[in-house]
Amino acid sequence: MSKDWSTFARDLDLHLDLDTVSGRRAGLERALRDAIRTGRLAPRAALPSTRSLAQHLCMSRGTVSAAYDQLVTEGYLVARHGSGTSVAGVPLPLAPGATPGRPEGTPRYDLRPGRPDLTTFPAAAWLRATRRVLTSAPAEIHALSDPRGRAELRTTLAGYLGRARGVLAVPDQIVITSGYSQALGLLARVLADSGASAVAMEDPGHPFHREIVRRAGLTVLALPVDDGGARTDLLASRRFADAAAVVLTPAHQYPTGETLHPGRRHALTAWARSTGGLVIEDDYDGEFRYDRQPVGAVQGMAPGNVAYVGTASKTLAPALRLAWMVLPRSLTEAVADTKNHADAHTASLGQLVLADLIETHAYDRHIRAARLRYRRRRDLLLSRLQAAAPMAVVSGIAAGLHALIRLPRTGPGEDAILSLAIAQGLALQPLADHWHHGADHPQGLIAGYSTPPEHAWPAALDTLCAVLRQRPSTSAR
Amino acid sequence: MSKDWSTFARDLDLHLDLDTVSGRRAGLERALRDAIRTGRLAPRAALPSTRSLAQHLCMSRGTVSAAYDQLVTEGYLVARHGSGTSVAGVPLPLAPGATPGRPEGTPRYDLRPGRPDLTTFPAAAWLRATRRVLTSAPAEIHALSDPRGRAELRTTLAGYLGRARGVLAVPDQIVITSGYSQALGLLARVLADSGASAVAMEDPGHPFHREIVRRAGLTVLALPVDDGGARTDLLASRRFADAAAVVLTPAHQYPTGETLHPGRRHALTAWARSTGGLVIEDDYDGEFRYDRQPVGAVQGMAPGNVAYVGTASKTLAPALRLAWMVLPRSLTEAVADTKNHADAHTASLGQLVLADLIETHAYDRHIRAARLRYRRRRDLLLSRLQAAAPMAVVSGIAAGLHALIRLPRTGPGEDAILSLAIAQGLALQPLADHWHHGADHPQGLIAGYSTPPEHAWPAALDTLCAVLRQRPSTSAR
Repeated sequence: MSKDWSTFARDLDLHLDLDTVSGRRAGLERALRDAIRTGRLAPRAALPSTRSLAQHLCMSRGTVSAAYDQLVTEGYLVARHGSGTSVAGVPLPLAPGATPGRPEGTPRYDLRPGRPDLTTFPAAAWLRATRRVLTSAPAEIHALSDPRGRAELRTTLAGYLGRARGVLAVPDQIVITSGYSQALGLLARVLADSGASAVAMEDPGHPFHREIVRRAGLTVLALPVDDGGARTDLLASRRFADAAAVVLTPAHQYPTGETLHPGRRHALTAWARSTGGLVIEDDYDGEFRYDRQPVGAVQGMAPGNVAYVGTASKTLAPALRLAWMVLPRSLTEAVADTKNHADAHTASLGQLVLADLIETHAYDRHIRAARLRYRRRRDLLLSRLQAAAPMAVVSGIAAGLHALIRLPRTGPGEDAILSLAIAQGLALQPLADHWHHGADHPQGLIAGYSTPPEHAWPAALDTLCAVLRQRPSTSAR
Repeated sequence: MSKDWSTFARDLDLHLDLDTVSGRRAGLERALRDAIRTGRLAPRAALPSTRSLAQHLCMSRGTVSAAYDQLVTEGYLVARHGSGTSVAGVPLPLAPGATPGRPEGTPRYDLRPGRPDLTTFPAAAWLRATRRVLTSAPAEIHALSDPRGRAELRTTLAGYLGRARGVLAVPDQIVITSGYSQALGLLARVLADSGASAVAMEDPGHPFHREIVRRAGLTVLALPVDDGGARTDLLASRRFADAAAVVLTPAHQYPTGETLHPGRRHALTAWARSTGGLVIEDDYDGEFRYDRQPVGAVQGMAPGNVAYVGTASKTLAPALRLAWMVLPRSLTEAVADTKNHADAHTASLGQLVLADLIETHAYDRHIRAARLRYRRRRDLLLSRLQAAAPMAVVSGIAAGLHALIRLPRTGPGEDAILSLAIAQGLALQPLADHWHHGADHPQGLIAGYSTPPEHAWPAALDTLCAVLRQRPSTSAR
């Protein structure tokens, strides 16, 4: 017994040596806890008296006694009058080992769409804005805020969105969210709570977004997409009679890249007005239009029928988790209440920093620079592909951060080309993932031109062209 | 017609003058949109030819033509071969006016519990950490991350929680959330998805948290609280047969302030082990213990059965929306998946800054200073109340940021005292709101000692004492 305890005591010394900050008593407590957890001290094992352990460890008896008391309070030990202190009777599990991190291959050139060039994140401007906010704002910014978000950002966004996106916004009807996915989830929950059963979504579209809507208990109806964007002219048909809402990407359809045709915009707002249906406008990359000025948001035409959602994920960075909804007045209260019960509100500091960046025009400058950069990349993509793979038909190039490379029916399919690409360290997104139902769909590859850092773009394009040039050799033609 | 158009043209000029940045065409487009939205240009109204409007506005015809084209694309205008350009046929609603902000009275002294002294937020340390993160971290920090949160913070927290709270944590089983309410909501959803029907929650407890659990479709069962904390000894009874989980505040019961008795801790873990029930441990203020060292988390005794939730809301600020769950291995995947579909992950920058603050010990220093400050305030609260209102019984004072002032059954009740307090500009939280069901409950007032800034605390206490001294005059005694 004494030998066991001397082993134990050495371990304790080790722990105490490791922790000179929190004192001997804390170290003893921790060592005892560890010993009980790891089984070195078995359930119901008797502990030495405080006097003998104190002697052994060259501690005061009071220190040991206090540590025992503490662990009795925490339930590790049991103290019984007359029979001393012992380990509690319930066996404690061993510490679980760490599971290995999720392995994920990192491609040399990642052309999968969805994020901007993160090397251009305006860190210096963000830091300056953070300093301005933290040094000038009252302590109240650290308190819980309105579930809709900080009034500073909502006010600033109302002006910005009107100016830049043709959105008719009043600050009271804006709700700041932690990214687009949260905005969509909140809207879906509010729709489901109000008795809705189904929502129409673009086909092809983002599969993750369909899943978010389904998890709110709603049925997703497939709305076809063609060269004019989503077939909103079909919304009035019987197929969509149950649709309480439609989720659309009007400025730059994801993933085809088409812009919603003016006639389709009219069909859309006419449907919304006549049925009371809600249009959820996902304006994920509306700031990036190259051939002409940005197409104004549909929301500006029918603010009472559209829930507009914008995001900083493409303009700044997805990891900021900052998005904004401009809501019809009738929905604002319910959405704010749902947001409140989801996570109270989106973190305030990021909101205030973004508001500062917009107010000081640093946000506009950053977007303008990014637009030029992405436009040059797009131009290079088009000219290189035309020279190296003239059979490739590229569409959706008027805007955004990605293009769709349409594959002819007679050539090799997505899988064959993706295999070639992966072998070259090139990641592309297949169109296949985006259809609602597996069937004989046109094939294509989505090539994002924003992800690689600036210096890597020409080499990424070389690789893409090489992969596409290899096509004839794997094809029957 | 010409007269109307000259009025319109003057408005346009005004707009153009207002916006010299984005050019004449953009100004014209905006003015046209505004005119259509506000009804100055009625649905189906014919627009002047590009030539005549260009003359009128001293613009090139190309500019006007481009603006018309843009608005046709956006759906505001319709262009028909041979019949010129006209406003689209669908009437557009007027811009909705701003609704007034939600009025809320601001008390002179706010003793409602739930937030720390925000004037002590370590803004300089936060800013320094932000600079370190933004200047040293790779661009990848701006990309979407693991739904569980940044590995840097999870790794740092695993060490911190073991050291400071006796939590047995491995980084893989930590999920960072946007505050405690989100953590609770995610757990409730995962429980509901796995077929759970009911959850036991402390009575009295936080009504907002009950609502979060109910919104996941679960029934809330009332678990009584006494001087030994929650009556976990009752969990094995038939009343709680349907409880798949129990939500508890073991370190400092909210709102009574009691610490869960060691026997109750054992009853709790025994229940969890024998039934497979989940313990949700809300460790909202576990860092603040005054009479002895912090009581270690229950999680350390039964890591396979406890979902531990800690938060930065009390140690730093609620507006950061940063909390962390340490989960049983069996729950981690489902919770991470639910988090992913809720908002992808919590914003990365705040996580990395917090990790830096913990690593550099700035977090510990801040907590130590806050603990001293709150302890002094608590001591002053106790001595002042004893002198000024000896009949007041104060409990829950060993820890946390609030105490409970228990009201004797024979004196004036919560409502009477709250009225007196409000008249003096003093906000307190009545105990009444916290019971699951209205009935003849003991009465009490929750007095937070963290909210007022340091300099205002003595005056806040004077007011509290004055209010409590007035009690006899409104009482029958």
